[in-house]
This record gives sequence, structure tokens and C-alpha cells, in this order.
Amino acid sequence: MTRVHVVGTGLVGTSLGLALTRHGDDVTLEDAVPTHAALARDLGAGRLLGAQEEPEPDLVVVAVPPDVTAGCVVAALERFPDAGVTDVASVKGVVLAAVRAAGADLTRYCGGHPMAGRERAGAVSGRHDLFDGRAWVVTPSPETRVEVTALVTHVARSAGAAVRALAPDVHDRAVAAVSHVPQLASSLVAARLEVLDDEAVALAGQGLRDVTRIAASDPNLWTQILAGNAAAVREVLGGLAEDLGAVVGALAALEAGEDAPGARGAIAGAIAAGNAGHARIPGKHGAAPTAFETVRVLIPDRPGQLGRLFADIGEIGTNVEEFRLDHGLGQDFGVAEVDVVPAAAAALAEALGERGWRIHG
Amino acid sequence: MTRVHVVGTGLVGTSLGLALTRHGDDVTLEDAVPTHAALARDLGAGRLLGAQEEPEPDLVVVAVPPDVTAGCVVAALERFPDAGVTDVASVKGVVLAAVRAAGADLTRYCGGHPMAGRERAGAVSGRHDLFDGRAWVVTPSPETRVEVTALVTHVARSAGAAVRALAPDVHDRAVAAVSHVPQLASSLVAARLEVLDDEAVALAGQGLRDVTRIAASDPNLWTQILAGNAAAVREVLGGLAEDLGAVVGALAALEAGEDAPGARGAIAGAIAAGNAGHARIPGKHGAAPTAFETVRVLIPDRPGQLGRLFADIGEIGTNVEEFRLDHGLGQDFGVAEVDVVPAAAAALAEALGERGWRIHG
Repeated sequence: MTRVHVVGTGLVGTSLGLALTRHGDDVTLEDAVPTHAALARDLGAGRLLGAQEEPEPDLVVVAVPPDVTAGCVVAALERFPDAGVTDVASVKGVVLAAVRAAGADLTRYCGGHPMAGRERAGAVSGRHDLFDGRAWVVTPSPETRVEVTALVTHVARSAGAAVRALAPDVHDRAVAAVSHVPQLASSLVAARLEVLDDEAVALAGQGLRDVTRIAASDPNLWTQILAGNAAAVREVLGGLAEDLGAVVGALAALEAGEDAPGARGAIAGAIAAGNAGHARIPGKHGAAPTAFETVRVLIPDRPGQLGRLFADIGEIGTNVEEFRLDHGLGQDFGVAEVDVVPAAAAALAEALGERGWRIHG
Repeated sequence: MTRVHVVGTGLVGTSLGLALTRHGDDVTLEDAVPTHAALARDLGAGRLLGAQEEPEPDLVVVAVPPDVTAGCVVAALERFPDAGVTDVASVKGVVLAAVRAAGADLTRYCGGHPMAGRERAGAVSGRHDLFDGRAWVVTPSPETRVEVTALVTHVARSAGAAVRALAPDVHDRAVAAVSHVPQLASSLVAARLEVLDDEAVALAGQGLRDVTRIAASDPNLWTQILAGNAAAVREVLGGLAEDLGAVVGALAALEAGEDAPGARGAIAGAIAAGNAGHARIPGKHGAAPTAFETVRVLIPDRPGQLGRLFADIGEIGTNVEEFRLDHGLGQDFGVAEVDVVPAAAAALAEALGERGWRIHG
């Protein structure tokens, strides 16, 4: 049993309390807004302390918004001189720098970043399995004692996460490329739709929907994240802006009606570089990328049809790797895209066809 | 019964032949590569003509790559002086301009753009329901006779598509924003992953996967599309580059450690503009955007589990609006995200819980 004190009972703090309580740890809760902590307690995330009571945690988890994280970490290191301290902010370099600048005891601080979130915030959205199978990056500094890193790792695993250790600056550069810049790109593409006519927006297809799904994210939170990782984000954006400039230049040359030697090559190069980058994204379960084959099935838009489909797939015995439901425009049906390992695709399509499903392709 | 002559038996031409043949139309096929036409014929997409035979079509559909479309349209207008002629290129302005410049009979030409495609190309990937429920934009010029526009509309509907009429330049500006720039943005974001360490790429989450899914597209095809719509794409990219510059400037100001008045506001503004643009994307079936509620269900990674889930949802009687399967990192289960109308969400979650499913949140 580990004694964990959670400071900040928003989505992440509450979810962590729920997970660790279920795991059998002793979780105490605190929030700058006492009613928030009480709500998390009521949800089962841990216990509150009496007015005169002081917790004696093994580990303090600071789970507050990014821009107040460093201050809370410094305060926790001073208040609990025998405890390890970690945090959950999405950016690690600025937090470490601020904690160091404050002259706090860095040997007991190990940063962390659970890569789990959801669209909704607050204790009420917390859930005990938020971290199940998600990456939780721990970012020890050179000063961090190994026992503290081990303790944070242990607690993150107790919450169900898959732990990876990275240096803070390595973490920040990684999330700039795999999270922060994709978020910005999605927002910038979606912003172009603001000025469009209805008849133009009506042509939106699945590609646009995929690219812009995360454009619905919270501006306030993302401003803190991007501002806190300004250098790494700027570096990735610099490369992106350079590629963008090359494409715009090529388009301008083509538009000018010149023979434009190299213009088509520049555009094709940008798309091909995207192919190469895309191929590096790992497959599910963190395994190497796998090329699945897609079986497409026509689904009438009535209750129970997907159930019938999956019951049939279950009977056939095929494991579904990925699944997407794609709706057409102005029609009462959708197309289910069922990704399976290549060896299973033909047999699945045939068996579904025999059961009366209309298979695409 | 309409007599339709298809020039070019790639994915789109073959799929159109399959759809129209099933519809009862008389489809003749031709391709610059005779074996390709023969393959499409063997697949059931229509019939071939003898060496001395000349078709007498009501409509000629030119379904060749974008950069050779205009030449084929001009040739078809000359060769079939009594037929209407359409094409399927993703860009319309350059094709019309080239056909006009050639002095061809514009009264019988009405451009078209079936907004359906898939990752694979060629006759062998053709399918009769490729256009089912998809948008097919028809783009008559001022010279196009109304009967020709009506004929193209009729044939597109026979193939199962939902037809919308737009002026060629309006079409090109619309697809620049909803299709061409999102493709480029996806490619540029994915290209950033090329230089990343494995440990950094391993942190990829669902957001990155969504943003970069279409980055796997064909460089050659997209070079033709982007080059053919250079002006409209450049205009949209100009707005995007301006927004990007504002964000980079704000990040630089924050990085310089200045008080940076307005910097956080500029970043938040970019994310908020993305929120607003994202909210304009229509929901399924081309209806107004609907805010669905998501019920999250833990799915063990064994055959038949999704089937069991959907069978249960079918019994409960809830209609699934959207469905996503999200896999965690290093764990043998996934999280199914089931979107339903808000009124049905709580009841569905409760009923699934009663049936033994682990519900998130």
C-alpha cells in the first residue's frame, strides 16, 4: 500500500485517486476549491483530511493546470520533506526549470506526464480506468534520486499505465511533434472553414473530419500547453513552415503558367514525405505498424444492424483490429470499415457475403 | 436506359460502369490500355466495342487522370458530336479553361466531380457502390445546355450519388478548403515524424493518428490535384500561413521570456477559431451538426467481444451514430467509443453496465 496525496482534483487527479483507491492504496485529496475535493471524495477517489490533520504521503501528485504546476511542486517539496513529488503537466522542461530556479530539493522531484485525457474536464468526468494501457512518461532530472523515479513509476503502473522514462527535454520535443503541432495544424485547418459558404462546407468528407476532430479542444488548456513548450513547438513548426513555403512557392510557379521546373516535384516530395512519416506511427498496442486489410460492409441505418454485423463477425471468429463507421451524404446507410489482419480479410468478406451482407469492393 | 460511354477504366470509370450496368444502362468501355478495358469488362462494368464499331452514346464520361482530362474531353466532344460529355476530375476550373481554349463545343460539356475514392486504384478495386450516398458535384459552365446538365445529373443519380450543382470556381474554392488543404496539412504534420526517434514516435496517440490518416495518400495523384487547383489552394494556404505566423510569433515572444502582452491571446484565438470552424462541419447524412454523447466501453481484445457489445446494444434498441475503437498502449484491450443522441446516452450506459460491461466515466 502506497500513501499518495493528490493535489488538485480535476479530471486527472480524480481519475488517479479512483484508480489508486481501487488498487488498494491510501489516497488523500486536496484542492484549492474545497468543494471540488469533496466531490472527488464522494466519487470514491480518496479521503479528505481534518482541519488539524497533515498527511504523511510517500508520494505527492500535483495535478493542477500547467501554468500553476511548478509553484505547487515547490510548495509540496517544502511541505512534505520526506515525500517524493511528481506532477502531471503535459510539458516538463519549463516545470523543471522553475522548480530548479526556486531552489527546491530536486532530488525528490520526478516529473510525469500521463498521456490520457478526454474532451471533458472536472472531477465528475473522472474515471478509474482513464490510464489503463495509456503511456505515462516519467521525466527524472539528473538530480532525481532513483528511488523517487521508481516510486512514481510504481504508482503510475498501479493506475494501469505503461511507463516510459525520458529526459524532460526529450519528452518535450517528442510531444511537440506527436501532439502539440498536430493539435495546432488541426485547429488551423478547421479555422479555414469559418469563412466558407454552407454549400462548400457541405462537401466535407471523412478526410476533413479526421484531420479536424481534435480541433474541438479547449483553447485555455492548449494555450498553457503550447506556451509551456514554446521552444520545441516552434522548432517543429519551423520545419513545417519551411515545407509549406516550398509547396506554396511551387503552386505559385504553376499558377504563373511557367513551365515551372521542379514545381511538381516539390509538391510530390511533400506528399511523399508525409507517406514516410505516416508509416512510422506504431500500430495498436505499441507494436510495429501493421498494414491491416479493410473489409467494407454496407450498414442500413436502423437499430441493431451493427449488432447483427458484429454478432456475425464473432461467429465467424475474426478479430477486429480497427473499426470505422462512415456515413454517406443524404442516404440512410453507412459503410462499416472493418480492419483485420490481411490473412483473414478474404475469408471474412466471403463469410459475411454468405450471411447476406453487402460487401464493398 | 441511358447509353453511357466510359473513357478510362480505372477505379472511378470501372465503378461507374458497374453501378450503371446494375442500374440497367448500356455501358461501353474504352481505355488507352486495352487490357485495362478488358479487365473492367470481365468485372461486369460494361461491354467492349469491335474494331469497326463506333458507340452512339447519350453521355461520354471521361474518367482519366486529372492532367490528361481536358484533352480527352476535347477529343470526345469532337468524336461524338451528338453526345453530352462530362469528366470526373477533382478540379474543374483548369479543365474548363483548357476545353474552352481548345475551341471545343462547350454547350455539350458539363464538368463533374464524384467525391468518392479509396486508397487503392485500378479497375480491380472498382465496386458498384462506390458512389452510394456520396456527393457528386456537377459544374456546368455558362455555355452548358440545361439538358446536358440534367443528363449528367441523371447518370450520377443512377450510380447512387447525391448531386449538387456548383459553378466550377465555387467548387474549386470549396474543395481547396475541405479537401486539398487538409490533405496538405496532414502530409506536412506526418512529414515531421520522419526525423523523430523511435521513443518519440512511440508516444503517438489517437489525435495524431486521426490528423495523419490521409497522409498515406498517393503523391502522384495529389500532385495533379494540387497543381490543378493552385490558385484556390494558395489562397486557403495563405490564410493558414498567416494564422501560423501569428502563433509562431506569439511562441517566440513567450520563449524570449517577455511579458508578451497578447501572445497567449493569439494562441488561444487560433485554437478558438478552430473550434468555430470545426462546429460548422455537418453531421452524418449531410444534416446539421449534432452534438452526440459518447459512451465508452472497455473491450477485451478477444474475438467476439465487439459482437457481444453490438448484440447487446441492438437488444437495448439504441441507434449508434458513430463508433470508434481506440487501442491503448501495451494492453490487451481497447476502448469502444459509442456515440448516440444525448437523450439515449445515460440509459445505454446503465443498460450496458447491467449486462456486465465496464463503462468509462
